[in-house]
Parts: sequence; structure tokens; C-alpha cells
Amino acid sequence: MQYSELSREELLSLKSELDERYKESKSKGLNLNMARGKPSATQLNVSMDILDVINSKSDLNAIDGTDCRNYGVLDGLPEAKQLMADMMGTTKEHVIVYGNASLNIMYDQVSRAFIHGLMGNTPWCRLDKVKFLCPVPGYDRHFAITESFGVEMINIPMTENGPDMDLVEKYVNNDSAVKGIWCVPKYSNPQGFTYSDETVKRFAGLKPAANDFRIFWDNAYVIHHLYEDKQDEILDIISECEKAGNPDMVFEFASTSKVSFPGGGIAAIAASEGNLNDIKKHLTIQTIGYDKLNQLRHVRYFKNLDGLKAHMAKHAEQLRPKFEATLKVFDDELTGLGIGSWYAPRGGYFISFDAMEGCAKSIVAKCKEAGVTLTNAGATFPYHKDPKDSNIRIAPSFPTAEDMAQAADIFVLCVKIASVEKLLETK
Amino acid sequence: MQYSELSREELLSLKSELDERYKESKSKGLNLNMARGKPSATQLNVSMDILDVINSKSDLNAIDGTDCRNYGVLDGLPEAKQLMADMMGTTKEHVIVYGNASLNIMYDQVSRAFIHGLMGNTPWCRLDKVKFLCPVPGYDRHFAITESFGVEMINIPMTENGPDMDLVEKYVNNDSAVKGIWCVPKYSNPQGFTYSDETVKRFAGLKPAANDFRIFWDNAYVIHHLYEDKQDEILDIISECEKAGNPDMVFEFASTSKVSFPGGGIAAIAASEGNLNDIKKHLTIQTIGYDKLNQLRHVRYFKNLDGLKAHMAKHAEQLRPKFEATLKVFDDELTGLGIGSWYAPRGGYFISFDAMEGCAKSIVAKCKEAGVTLTNAGATFPYHKDPKDSNIRIAPSFPTAEDMAQAADIFVLCVKIASVEKLLETK
Repeated sequence: MQYSELSREELLSLKSELDERYKESKSKGLNLNMARGKPSATQLNVSMDILDVINSKSDLNAIDGTDCRNYGVLDGLPEAKQLMADMMGTTKEHVIVYGNASLNIMYDQVSRAFIHGLMGNTPWCRLDKVKFLCPVPGYDRHFAITESFGVEMINIPMTENGPDMDLVEKYVNNDSAVKGIWCVPKYSNPQGFTYSDETVKRFAGLKPAANDFRIFWDNAYVIHHLYEDKQDEILDIISECEKAGNPDMVFEFASTSKVSFPGGGIAAIAASEGNLNDIKKHLTIQTIGYDKLNQLRHVRYFKNLDGLKAHMAKHAEQLRPKFEATLKVFDDELTGLGIGSWYAPRGGYFISFDAMEGCAKSIVAKCKEAGVTLTNAGATFPYHKDPKDSNIRIAPSFPTAEDMAQAADIFVLCVKIASVEKLLETK
Repeated sequence: MQYSELSREELLSLKSELDERYKESKSKGLNLNMARGKPSATQLNVSMDILDVINSKSDLNAIDGTDCRNYGVLDGLPEAKQLMADMMGTTKEHVIVYGNASLNIMYDQVSRAFIHGLMGNTPWCRLDKVKFLCPVPGYDRHFAITESFGVEMINIPMTENGPDMDLVEKYVNNDSAVKGIWCVPKYSNPQGFTYSDETVKRFAGLKPAANDFRIFWDNAYVIHHLYEDKQDEILDIISECEKAGNPDMVFEFASTSKVSFPGGGIAAIAASEGNLNDIKKHLTIQTIGYDKLNQLRHVRYFKNLDGLKAHMAKHAEQLRPKFEATLKVFDDELTGLGIGSWYAPRGGYFISFDAMEGCAKSIVAKCKEAGVTLTNAGATFPYHKDPKDSNIRIAPSFPTAEDMAQAADIFVLCVKIASVEKLLETK
């Protein structure tokens, strides 16, 4: 029975029962964390052998003869470009390989647009107003970058097929102050949605009012499936933009942070020749080159797309039980109550939970009090402001499946209490 | 006998003799390169064992328990901070450890000053004019950074004790548009000069007209000695600035690019607590963290300052004969002719040669024609403009000592020809 259909008396009685259980839970003194979107130590163990492929006896020349130990090669080893292109589903001509963090590449792209301008356009720092579209809920670190540059961020609701494209088209095609949009197109952070083919094609077919509008296509989870047999597919945005006559409209990003090691991976951008030339013009001032030995290490270990896929299957094996343990508790405890909705993603690192309006902060606080740490409510929105105070991001990767089940028990309990309290306000 | 004292007839006769030798040299079809300030493959071999200290069997926890494989730790492992602090001669509280390139740190510091401002000061992009002092000759990649941001660069002559401090004080203490100065304080690029204690103290005692004036102290060659028994010392600028009441006035930079591998080292900044907090506020937006596994690799390999010093002695053993072979040719062939001056550095990666005014471009072109590549004349000055067309940077590290001697033979021959031609213009 839906909670909203309960009478005040029924709600009060339910609340007293739930409060009792909450008190009991608190007394256990738990210390669980569902906030951190990072692999567990056990999961990282699957990548340990990468540390052996390069040693003092190794030939450290790249396929083009580059001595990877020395200076040189601004834009990445050819074989590293190939590997990252394979991962993103594009060709190596579109790729520059960097150091360990794709976030840093995104930051630098925004920074460069502000100071130097993109492909000859006016630097954004000289404009009165720069706006970015932000599909919500989304990734807090994306929003933090644009916030730090004083960009006005506009919420765009997400659907299971991607952002609301009517709204995206309205803004992008009519407002020349709209310079970008943050996208996690596959297994989106936090919902785990994958943009449909139609969505990708509508992105590629945008007719931006601004010459220097760019799609920031953070393909962070492009090969991060949870299942062998149920995998989402995403169209290649680079070639779709080419076909639509908008080759320069997109920056795509990816990294091996959740493939090899978050603390020692490689990252890349994919873009048109025009964009890459523009980037390299500035990059050659910024650095002599990135860590080629680590690029070589990754190429020698993963070899190619098949190698990457086989490796990701090992990660999936570790992650799947944690997602399933969490979702089972949600299904068992919350189905039919009308106090929350969630989605079982086929990949990525998160489960997104939408509570009743006005309940997210209260749920997170109650969980905290009972020893379960969640990402702050609001974190998935620009300026940390969830207009409905509803969305909560759950990260099942770091704890064990058993701990996740236990944490999820507390979570659903807190969802129930917060919902009852909310309903009592108006009954 | 000095060339300037030769008569027109003597010069003409000398020229015909030199031209004959030049023709002969050209016929050899040499292909030698004195342009690249990078280690040779043989030299890089001394660092190969660093690739073995971390492997799949290693404990990958830092001393504070951080799993170096995972996310976390924005500002560097504690032990990596200690190692880089030891290298720079400061304490680990002053240090942030980054990825592989100190140049990238410098670029980001300038970039951040332009966009966000330093420690609450007005972002430089909002100012009509930003000026940097540039001790000359200096490092082309420093000048390229400030040039790319539209900074007005002012030449400051170098002496064997460092930059002309009367001039530095005049500019810094009186002009609030002067926001920075580029320094390579030890074994300077390209001259190999080390700033005297008096120079460092005068730097620390500057009374800048601008609150946000910063010394960009690129201590690139701080432990890069050529000799065991003849080593320059440099005062610690961080503590000198503290003592002088100017703790926030300096950013110090260093890396292991020429200690371990240029293509896979670690880099660091040292600065005051105020500056580090200001940096971290923005860095946490820019990245989740740098490659901790490579930091760990470096710490486990070098251990401490003694380890670094012992390792640098191996590099010196490789480099010394190349410098000495070059300098011997200069000494033997050019001493007393009054057509050039040079300095025998005790460390660093370069020899700086000052030709007669108006001869550098001609010398570089003649060398090129005879198969010897040099750094372009003018490269050691802002905007690539050497007002005297005199300075040439020579990089002895990459070729063998034998090749360097052969290249130096061609070089001195070209110096002689260019000088004779110059003298003939007015005789």
C-alpha cells in the first residue's frame, strides 16, 4: 500500500515502529560508506599485473621508435592513441593522450576557452555571460569546474534516453551565451542511463547560436558494464557530429581510472582535427609531454579492445554483487510504497535514488546519524541545489556486498521515516 | 692575436683559409645535434632499476596507509613531499607533488593568476597590463608561457651572480604591473650561473609594488652537479623570504625529469602555507589527484637526499666528458681571439656562448649548413629577440663526447668565419 494513502493514525503508528527499528540500528554503531565512487582494494587487485609489464629489462621504445623514457611526443604514443580510440569507439587520429586524469583535461579545456578562446573565437573571459547546460542529476565535479569559472549553469532534466533534447535544442540553438553542456552519455553519473541513438543524433544535429558551443562528452563509463549479456551501446558522437556537418562541436573524454588504477591511469580527449590543432598549439606551451612510460605500460598490458573488455569483465564480477545486493533491498523494502524510485543500471558506478520531494537531505542526515555515510543531498545538482530535495547518489563500489546490503537496510529505513515525517506534515 | 686587431688583408686571407676548411667540413655530410637539452639513452640507462621497485607483489600503501592505487590525496604522498622537499632544500610542509612536468605547474600557476587571481588579488586578466621580468639569456619555455598570456616581458641582464638586482629592485619595487620574474637560480639555463647568497637575499628582501608579485623560482638543476668536488650552493629561497617578511612572494619548482626519466618523473611546487592553500582550493576542482604510484616508485627508489645525490653522481659521470670535450675545443680554438666568451658551468645542462654582436644567427645558419644543429639564435630571449644577436645555447647532453667534440670543431670554425665576415663589414 502506498504511504500516501495511509491515514494520519496509520502513519503515526508506522512511525513509532520505524523509530524503534532506527534506534536499534543506531545502537549497532555502524560505520559504512556509500558515498565514494571508487573501487575497493579487492577490485584493484585484478589490475596488479599491469605493474609487471614494464621493468628494467623491458624494451622501452614505442612502435615508432620513441624512447619512452626521454622527452618528446606531446600528444601521446601512437599505440596509446589507438588504445584510447578503441575504448571510445573512435579512430586514433581524433585522440590526444594525457596524464592520469580526464577531469584535468576537462578543466584545461574550459580554462583555455576562457583565456585563449576556442579555435579563434573570443575568449570567454571577455564575455559578459557564459552559460552551460547541466543535465540533472549529474556529476558534481563537472559542475564544480564551471562554477569555479563563474559560468551560469542551467538545469536540464534527464530521462532514461538522455537529457530533455527539446530543452537542449531550445537553449543551444537560440542563446549564443550557451557555450557548453556537460554529458555522461553512457551509464550516466548518477542514474546509469545511456543516451539513445536518437538523443545522440539530436546532439550531433544541434545548430548552436554560438560558434564555439561545445558538447563536453565525458564517456567515463564507456566500457564499464556490469553484465556480460546486458550491455548498453552508445553511438560514436565524433562521427555523428561529422556526418551532421558539426565536426568541431564535441570534446570527448575518457580514462583508465576505473580500468587500471584511479591513482595511476591514463586519460585522453577525442575531438576533430581543428580542435586538436587548437589544443596542441596551447599544449606545447603548457608541457613538454605526459608520462609515456605509463602510456606504454597500459598498451603493453591491455593490448587492444579485446584486452580491455576481458579486463572489464573482471571488474564487473566484483561490482555486480554489490549493485545487486543494494537493489534487492530497495526492491524488497520499497516496491509499491510510492516513496522513492530507482533504476537498475547496466553499468557505471552509481545507483540514483529519487525520494519524495523534500526528503533527500533528511534521509542523508538520518543515515549519517545511524553510521551510514552518503553523498550530500544536492551534490548531483549545480550549486549543490536540488530544487526538489529529492535525489541521492549511492555508490556501491567501495564496501563489500554484505556491507552494502547492511547499509541499504539502514537507507530504506531512513527513506521510510523521512517519508512518513513528510506526509505527516500535511495530514 | 685578437681578430679585431687584424688588418683587412689579414682578415681576407684568414677568411679564405677558413672557407676552405668549412667546405671540407661540409663535404663530410655530418648530422650532429647540439640543440636538445635532454639526456642520451646511455645516460637514461642509469635509472632503469626504478622500474623494478614497484611490481605486482609490492605493498602499495604509502606510509600513512593510503592505497596508492586508488583515488585520494590531492597534494602528494607524505613521503613524496619529503623527497621533493629534500631535493629543493625546504621542508615537506611547503610542498605539493604533482604529475610529471614542472613546466605544467608553472603554466597552471600563471593561468590561475590570470583567471582567479592569487590569494584574493585581482585576476590578472582584468588588468590592463601585466609585466614579467626575464633574466636573459634564459629558458625559452618560460618566456613562451608568459608570451602566450600576452604578458609584457622585460629583459634583465644576467651576471655570474644572478640577475642585475639593481634593475630587478627598480622594476619590482616601483611598478605594480610587474607581477613576476622567471628565475633558474642554480646552474642557470643556459649560462650555468648560480645566484650568489647576496642575490638570493636581495630577492627575498624585495618590496614589491604589487601585492601579488611572485618570484617563479625554477630550481630545475638544484642537484644537477657535474663534479663531485666543485659544486655550487644556493640559499633556500623559501626560508629567506620568510625571514625577510615576504613568505608569500615565491613559487619554487623542481622535478625529477633529469633525475629519473624525462618521460616519467614527478614534479613539485614549494611555497608558503598561504599560497599552498590558495593553490589547493583550485587544484581540488582541477583534478582528483596525481599519479601516486609513480610518486611511490620514486620514493622507494631514491629513498632520501643521499639516494638522490648518489644517483646524480652517476648522471654527472655521463655528462662531464661531454661538457669537457666541448669546452676543450672552445678553449683550444677561441681563447685570446676576442670573438666569443663562454663559461665552464659546474652543473646544469647547457653551455652558453656569446659571440661578437650581430653574429649569432649567422653562426647558427653556418653550422646548420655544415650538418650541426643548434638551438635557434634568439631562443634564449623573450619574443626570440636577442637585441645583440650574440647568444647561442649549446646542449652537450644528447650526443656522445666524440660527437660533441666534432660538433664543437664545426662550431668554432663557424664562429671564426662569422666573426671575420662581421669585422670585414667595417674594415
